Amino acid sequence: MPEQPSPTATLLLSCPDQKGLVAAVSAFLFELDGNIIHADQHTDQQEGAFLQRVEWELNGFGLARDEIAPAFAPLPERVGMTWTLRFSDDHPRVAIFVSKQGHCMYDLLARYEMGELRCTIPVIISNHPDLGPVAEAHGIPYHHLPVTPHSKPEQEAAIVELLDELDIDVIVLARYMQILSGDFVDRYPNRIINIHHSFLPAFAGARPYHQAHERGVKIIGATAHYVTEDLDSGPIIAQGVSPVSHRDSVPDLIQIGSDLEKTVLAKAVRLHLDDRVLSYGNRTVIFD
Amino acid sequence: MPEQPSPTATLLLSCPDQKGLVAAVSAFLFELDGNIIHADQHTDQQEGAFLQRVEWELNGFGLARDEIAPAFAPLPERVGMTWTLRFSDDHPRVAIFVSKQGHCMYDLLARYEMGELRCTIPVIISNHPDLGPVAEAHGIPYHHLPVTPHSKPEQEAAIVELLDELDIDVIVLARYMQILSGDFVDRYPNRIINIHHSFLPAFAGARPYHQAHERGVKIIGATAHYVTEDLDSGPIIAQGVSPVSHRDSVPDLIQIGSDLEKTVLAKAVRLHLDDRVLSYGNRTVIFD
Amino acid sequence: MPEQPSPTATLLLSCPDQKGLVAAVSAFLFELDGNIIHADQHTDQQEGAFLQRVEWELNGFGLARDEIAPAFAPLPERVGMTWTLRFSDDHPRVAIFVSKQGHCMYDLLARYEMGELRCTIPVIISNHPDLGPVAEAHGIPYHHLPVTPHSKPEQEAAIVELLDELDIDVIVLARYMQILSGDFVDRYPNRIINIHHSFLPAFAGARPYHQAHERGVKIIGATAHYVTEDLDSGPIIAQGVSPVSHRDSVPDLIQIGSDLEKTVLAKAVRLHLDDRVLSYGNRTVIFD
Amino acid sequence: MPEQPSPTATLLLSCPDQKGLVAAVSAFLFELDGNIIHADQHTDQQEGAFLQRVEWELNGFGLARDEIAPAFAPLPERVGMTWTLRFSDDHPRVAIFVSKQGHCMYDLLARYEMGELRCTIPVIISNHPDLGPVAEAHGIPYHHLPVTPHSKPEQEAAIVELLDELDIDVIVLARYMQILSGDFVDRYPNRIINIHHSFLPAFAGARPYHQAHERGVKIIGATAHYVTEDLDSGPIIAQGVSPVSHRDSVPDLIQIGSDLEKTVLAKAVRLHLDDRVLSYGNRTVIFD
Repeated sequence: MPEQPSPTATLLLSCPDQKGLVAAVSAFLFELDGNIIHADQHTDQQEGAFLQRVEWELNGFGLARDEIAPAFAPLPERVGMTWTLRFSDDHPRVAIFVSKQGHCMYDLLARYEMGELRCTIPVIISNHPDLGPVAEAHGIPYHHLPVTPHSKPEQEAAIVELLDELDIDVIVLARYMQILSGDFVDRYPNRIINIHHSFLPAFAGARPYHQAHERGVKIIGATAHYVTEDLDSGPIIAQGVSPVSHRDSVPDLIQIGSDLEKTVLAKAVRLHLDDRVLSYGNRTVIFD
Repeated sequence: MPEQPSPTATLLLSCPDQKGLVAAVSAFLFELDGNIIHADQHTDQQEGAFLQRVEWELNGFGLARDEIAPAFAPLPERVGMTWTLRFSDDHPRVAIFVSKQGHCMYDLLARYEMGELRCTIPVIISNHPDLGPVAEAHGIPYHHLPVTPHSKPEQEAAIVELLDELDIDVIVLARYMQILSGDFVDRYPNRIINIHHSFLPAFAGARPYHQAHERGVKIIGATAHYVTEDLDSGPIIAQGVSPVSHRDSVPDLIQIGSDLEKTVLAKAVRLHLDDRVLSYGNRTVIFD
Repeated sequence: MPEQPSPTATLLLSCPDQKGLVAAVSAFLFELDGNIIHADQHTDQQEGAFLQRVEWELNGFGLARDEIAPAFAPLPERVGMTWTLRFSDDHPRVAIFVSKQGHCMYDLLARYEMGELRCTIPVIISNHPDLGPVAEAHGIPYHHLPVTPHSKPEQEAAIVELLDELDIDVIVLARYMQILSGDFVDRYPNRIINIHHSFLPAFAGARPYHQAHERGVKIIGATAHYVTEDLDSGPIIAQGVSPVSHRDSVPDLIQIGSDLEKTVLAKAVRLHLDDRVLSYGNRTVIFD
Repeated sequence: MPEQPSPTATLLLSCPDQKGLVAAVSAFLFELDGNIIHADQHTDQQEGAFLQRVEWELNGFGLARDEIAPAFAPLPERVGMTWTLRFSDDHPRVAIFVSKQGHCMYDLLARYEMGELRCTIPVIISNHPDLGPVAEAHGIPYHHLPVTPHSKPEQEAAIVELLDELDIDVIVLARYMQILSGDFVDRYPNRIINIHHSFLPAFAGARPYHQAHERGVKIIGATAHYVTEDLDSGPIIAQGVSPVSHRDSVPDLIQIGSDLEKTVLAKAVRLHLDDRVLSYGNRTVIFD
C-alpha cells in the first residue's frame, strides 16, 4: 500500500473550449495559496471541448473545505462548466455485482483489504449463491437476488432499494452476467463500471473467447467501460491485451483472459475512485 | 542480417489427426540420416486436425534434393496429407502492391536490401504513380496501372498477365487501397498477404483510425492476414498493438499505426517466406 | 476454471542432442497406442542439448500407470537422458513463503480456491505474523517463524523439518524478503520459485523500484525464476513489463509493479505445476 | 504523413517548484490572446522541480515572433527558470552517425523522405564506407571518417569541424559503434541521441543480445537516451520491449531487436524534434 498522502481536494472540470480557462483556474488557486500537486488539462480541438483535473493540498489552503465550492462556483457559471469537487479522504461507497465467476471479485476484495482502493464496499450483490462464502470470508454482506427474464423488473427494483438504503455511489460489475435495464442504467450515469472480456469493439456480446478462437486472432483483450444503455458501447476507461497462439484452446483463452479482466477492471476502478476519469461524448479522458 | 545457415529442406504437413504421424515422419528422416534443426507439430483436437513443420539439413542427408519428394510421397498418400516441400535456398518471387502511402514499401525494400527477406522482388505494382521514384532508387521496376471502378477488370487482367510473365509466387499488399476481385484472389490462395490498419475484427472496412478515435479505444492495432474473398476476414498471420490515449488525435493514431503496420506486415512476410505459416479453416498455425 | 481433462501422463526429457530421439520416443508411444495431446521439443544447437515434453492420455494407453516407467527406462539409459514422468492427477504439495506484503499470496490463494492451480497447499510460512489472518480465512495453516541474522540457521532448520513433515515438493516465495542459505537452496533444486520485483538482470538486489525511479526508466518489470545460490541469478521462468512515465512516483511504481509481480509469479507457478518448464544450464525451456 | 498544422510556438520551461508558476505562464499567454493547443506540466515533488511545456498558435497571437522572447524573459529571470522557445517551422539540422548496420539509418531516411521528421538532414557520417550507397540513393552527403584508437582525436576534430560548418543542432547515433570522447559529448548536451540495443540498465556495454541469450531472459528491449560522458547511462527518452523464447537463437534476438531499435530510436528522435523532451538530473519528462 502506498504511503498515506496528506488530504487533498480535486476539481474535475469540463466545458466548451475558450481562451483563459487555465489562467482562471490557476489564478483562483494561486490567490488562495493552493499547493498544486497534480494539474493536467486536455483540449479536444475537434469537439471544441476543454477538460481539466487539478488536485491541491488542503493543508495551508486559504479556504475551509465547505467554503471551497461556494467560492469557486461563479467561474463555472460564467463559462458554462460542468464540475465536481472531491476530497481525498471522502470514500465513495461501492457495490460489487457478481454472478458465478469469482476472479474479479477475489481480486477487488484482496486489493480492498490491502488498502489499494480508496472506497468503502458495504455490499456484494449476485444473481447466484455460489460466491457467498467468499464474501463472508471477507466480512462483506452478500445479497443473493436471483433473476429470470420474467422477474427482472422486480429484481432490479429490489437492487435499487438496497443501493439507496446503503447510499451507494459506484457500481462495479465484476463479471455480472446480466444485462441491466435502461431505467436502471440511467440512475447511475458514468457510475457503473463493467469489464467486458474482449478487446472492444471486437467481439461484443456473448462468448467473446469462443468468437476470438473461431476468428483465429493472435492477441486477446479486455475492456473496462462505463455502462450505458447500448450494450458494450459505453465510454472506455481501460483496455489490456495479451498475445495468444494457435496452441491456446478456448479454455486457455479463458484462463489468459481472466488475468487480463481482473487487472483491467481494477485499474479502471482505481482511476475512477481517484477522480482521474472524465467522460465527454462517448470518450474518456484519463488523467494519470 | 543473420548469418547464412547451410541449406535445409522444410516439410509443411496437414491432415486429419491420427495416431503415429509424428512417429512416421520422424522415422522417415531418421532412417535417411536427417539432421533435424526444427520440428514442431500442432494438434487441433476440436477440429481433429494435425499440422506439422519439420526442417532438416540437406548436407549429409541420405537423398538428393530431387529424390526427396518421390520417397516421401507414399506416406501423405496413405494418410490423406496435404504437404509442401521447400528448400531454403529457393527464393520465392514476390510482387509488392502499393497505392500512395509508402511506409510499408520503404520498410520492405530496406529489409530486402539488407538481406532480411528470403525472396526476390522483381516488381512493384501501383494504381498511382507517386512511389515510382522510390522503387527506382531501389532499382526495382515499378508498374503504374491506374484503375477506376469501370476499368477494374482490365486492370486486374493486366496485372495477372504481368505476374504470370514474372512467375510471381507471393503478393504483398503494402497498403494497396483497392479491393481485389474474387477471381483474382482465387488465383493465389494463401499467397496474398495484406496489412489491415486495425486490430481485426475491430474496425474492418474503411478509415479504421477514424473509427478507433470515434470509439475512444485505449489501444490500437494492425493485422496481417491472407486475403480471401471476404474482405478483411482471411486467416490472421500476425497482429500488433500500441497503447494510445485521449491526447492522440486522428493524425497521431495514423502515425502510431503506421509503425505498427510496417512491423506487423514485415513479420508476416518473413514468417511466410520462411515456411512458418500453415492455414487450416480460417486460422493459421505459426511455427516460430 | 477450465473444464477437467481426462488424466494424462507427461514425460519431460533432456539429453545431449543426437539423431533419432524424436523417432524413438514417438515410436514408444505409438506402439502402446498412446494418444498424444501435446508434444514439443527443442534443440539448443549451440549447447548440443535436446529437450522434449510429451503428454498423452492414460485412457486407452497400453500400459498401466506403474508399468510405464519400467518400460520407458531403457531408452533414457541408452542415450544418457534425464527424465521425469508425472500424472496429471498427482497434485504436488506446495509451501508458500511470505513476509509482510500480501498481494502475491492473496492472488495465489484466490487461484487455488478457484481451482486454477493443480496442487495442494498445506502450509504458509512467514517471518512475520501479519498475514496470519488472511491464511486463516482461507483455511490454510500459517507458521510464523521469525528470523534474525543470528537465528537464521535455527529458523531454516525449523522450516526444513516442517517441509519434510508435510512432504513439500515445491516452494513459492511470494515476496519472502529473506535470503535463503545455500544449504537450504541445495535441498530444492529447480523447486523454489521466486518473484523478483524488477526486469532482471536490471535492478537485482534491494529496492528495485527505487533504483528504477532513480534511473528514470520508461518500462518496469517483474521476473519469476528458480532460486539458486546466486542471488537473483537463477533460471528465468517468466517475465512481464508495464510502461511507466515521469508522472509515476516510487509509490506508483510499487503499485504498478505489484500487479506485474502477482501475474508473473502465478504464471510461473502454473507452468511449473503443469510440467511445462525444463531447466538446463542457467536457462529454461517453456513448453507452452 | 499527418496534415500540416498552422505554425506554433513552444516553450519548454524548468525551474525550482514554487507556487503560481502555472498561473503566471497562462496569464502571459491569455493576455496576448494566445490559443493554447497543448499545455502540460510536471512537478517532481521529491526533487522540488517544476517542468512545463506549452504550445500555442502563432496566428492571432498578440506578438510578432521576434517580440516573444523579450516579452517573456522577465518571468524566467524572476523565478530562476531555464527556458527555450521554438517555432514549429524552424527545422533543426540533424547529423546521422552510422557504422556498418543500416536498419536504423534506412528507417530514419524513409521517415525523413515521407515528411515524418521535422528536421533537415544535411549529412551522414560513418567510420565505415559500407552504407555510402544507401545515403547516395537518398541524396544525402556521406562522409567516411575512419577511426582507430590512435587516430580518434583527429577523427573527432574532423567531425566537429564538419558539424560546425553545417551548423548541426542534433546528432543521432543510429548504431554508431564508437564511444565518443567526453570532450565531444560536452559540446552537445542533451543533443546527442543514441540507441542502445538492450533494455537499460540491463546489458549495458558490448554484445547485449549475446548477454541476453546467455542469461535466458524472456523479454528483450531497446533504449534511446541522451549521450553523457558515462557510457549507456544518460537520460532515457524511450524504451521498447519484445517477448522472446528459448526458440530464439542469438541471430533471432538480433533480428527481433533490430525492429525494436529502429522503432524506439525513431520515437525518441521525433519526440526531441517536436520539443517534447525535457531533461532534469538524469531523467526526462516526456510531454506526449
